[in-house]
Amino acid sequence: MADKPARGLADVVAASTALSDIDGRAGRLSYRGYDINELAGRATFEEIACLLQRGEAPDQAGLDSYRTELAAGRATGPLVAADLPGVARSQPPMAALRSLVSLASADDPDAESNEPAANLRKAARLTAHQPVLIAAYHAARSGQDLTPPDPGLSVAANFLLQLSGRRPDPRAAEILDTCLVLHADHTMNASTFAARVCAATLSDMHSAVVAALGTLKGPLHGGANEQVMLGLESIRASGGDPLEAVSKQVTARLADGEKIMGFGHRVYKTEDPRAAHLRAMSAELAQAGGDDTYYRMSRRMEEVVFSSKGLYPNVDFYAATVYHYLGIPTDLFTPVFSASRMAGWTAHVIEQHADNRLIRPDSEYIGASGRTWVPLEAR
Amino acid sequence: MADKPARGLADVVAASTALSDIDGRAGRLSYRGYDINELAGRATFEEIACLLQRGEAPDQAGLDSYRTELAAGRATGPLVAADLPGVARSQPPMAALRSLVSLASADDPDAESNEPAANLRKAARLTAHQPVLIAAYHAARSGQDLTPPDPGLSVAANFLLQLSGRRPDPRAAEILDTCLVLHADHTMNASTFAARVCAATLSDMHSAVVAALGTLKGPLHGGANEQVMLGLESIRASGGDPLEAVSKQVTARLADGEKIMGFGHRVYKTEDPRAAHLRAMSAELAQAGGDDTYYRMSRRMEEVVFSSKGLYPNVDFYAATVYHYLGIPTDLFTPVFSASRMAGWTAHVIEQHADNRLIRPDSEYIGASGRTWVPLEAR
Repeated sequence: MADKPARGLADVVAASTALSDIDGRAGRLSYRGYDINELAGRATFEEIACLLQRGEAPDQAGLDSYRTELAAGRATGPLVAADLPGVARSQPPMAALRSLVSLASADDPDAESNEPAANLRKAARLTAHQPVLIAAYHAARSGQDLTPPDPGLSVAANFLLQLSGRRPDPRAAEILDTCLVLHADHTMNASTFAARVCAATLSDMHSAVVAALGTLKGPLHGGANEQVMLGLESIRASGGDPLEAVSKQVTARLADGEKIMGFGHRVYKTEDPRAAHLRAMSAELAQAGGDDTYYRMSRRMEEVVFSSKGLYPNVDFYAATVYHYLGIPTDLFTPVFSASRMAGWTAHVIEQHADNRLIRPDSEYIGASGRTWVPLEAR
Repeated sequence: MADKPARGLADVVAASTALSDIDGRAGRLSYRGYDINELAGRATFEEIACLLQRGEAPDQAGLDSYRTELAAGRATGPLVAADLPGVARSQPPMAALRSLVSLASADDPDAESNEPAANLRKAARLTAHQPVLIAAYHAARSGQDLTPPDPGLSVAANFLLQLSGRRPDPRAAEILDTCLVLHADHTMNASTFAARVCAATLSDMHSAVVAALGTLKGPLHGGANEQVMLGLESIRASGGDPLEAVSKQVTARLADGEKIMGFGHRVYKTEDPRAAHLRAMSAELAQAGGDDTYYRMSRRMEEVVFSSKGLYPNVDFYAATVYHYLGIPTDLFTPVFSASRMAGWTAHVIEQHADNRLIRPDSEYIGASGRTWVPLEAR
């Protein structure tokens, strides 16, 4: 029994999982034993969601059946449909998704069941529905009708279709698909841990993923990718040579002891393996699009931060420019992260419910003690 | 660094807090250094909410000012008002509250700010609004208009007024007030911990309390008080002498290795001090109401479980009959718990934001490793 808290539970093993593993020293990440470098560009998000939620990579028949469930899961139920316009008018994206996923339990016949079969069905529905909710939110706030889904498209391609109203370039859809694979799970990150704390009271999957969405929203977690892009935009808008402006501003901020968003990680002591894939995709999209300024600014920022602090970019850093080049509005970057991580969150809820124990830590009391209550009239 | 997980983080110190302290061996609970036995029946919920959120018990001027904030916080904003009828028609109580509190951030001008002053204002508003949401939900599902709040009444009395449409008996309001005091905070319980995990990404207070609401919903946490009452109702409905039925059913269930809801606690090794106060209030209400069957059944259950397992009742056990005798519908017991715990959750968010570190534990990987990805066509 520890007497002093491990601040932030750093290095405290909070749970066992068979879903993903990180070797922070070697810079390795694997999903159910498959190295992320084996999966990036070779496995689809649908295969990975199935692998995480159901335990094994599907064969063709299993994948077809899972895809059919996903296509059905794109339908929006009556409560969400009724409330979406008001939510889109009055809540920013992550708060809106927190509300909409909470409302969506009304439209799910399995909402209150933690049975294994019910959890599998909900995991597929939540994974299918999340990108649709993002596109529907964006259409509603833009005063436009949502483009209908195409059941023949992948999750990634269908999202780009519904978000933009245009059939996406096949390579853009592939790149987004790889992004979804790279973000799908990451051991006991804060949002996943929140989902498990919630599920461990034997609460339901919607409650757990709503807790996760609210947790991902924070700028120290999923909110970081948006902050990275806003930082790049602000530097570029300041005028002058953008690479020199990066060097100058980042150097000054580091000298002031400020943190630079998108760098460093609690677990990785070397480069985050996801960052390498995202950097390469950012470079490809920058070149294809004809304006590689943000990519070059990112490279420069990486050099300055590394030479000054020895810190590596994390998953959020190059995700920002990749999403930007894919035409995704900056305030939807964290929602796109959630569309991928939904695969992992739901798999963790399934795993938690399958072998549950309440997660209830101790705390260290640091306040006053032995005080005598003085009634109001004598205070 | 531990290699093996402390299952459920039992006995792991996850955070420091100056809000509440438990001595599990002595059966003591204190809020900011005041023993719960000093507070029960002597301090009001408003004083305790102020003590937790603002650091000190208020003087008369401070309490008047806090009460004015609470009265203003009872107003429901446009998004919640618009969506409430549909939510009440289609979501059970705790799922509905999860949705409504998430929606309520749209109506809060401080929603996206974590500034200390903004957090204090939101803490008061969320504490004031939670009982109103419960009453409004109940009115909407019952097809009735919500009784308007009375700014001269306490949180407890006003809740009973708005829930029932009738001005409450003063002693009933006092008893509910004491229940709210007893449930207001409890160190690192699962829902509070979920709120802190969420807030520690620098997400906002609404996100954190929405995570807490979803976590409280589970039957291993806040959902237990409802389960206790359903158990008593089911035994009584089975016919025959209710005390004999209790003895027979509980003995049989314990022999089958089943858990009995409302008994035992991760932290208390002796009687939960809150249970003693709740037992006394249950006895008083049973006698005043003229039908003490559920109280006598509870006493019998307590005797059987203690003599067989040495387990004490926890806070949920006698809260069930107290709420029942107060005329609160059984499926609103956990919501009433949330109306009290909102004071603690919001105080913990304030405390987390004031000295923040991301809460991100490690995990133990127990799955396969070193697998080679086989492309779909070869599977």
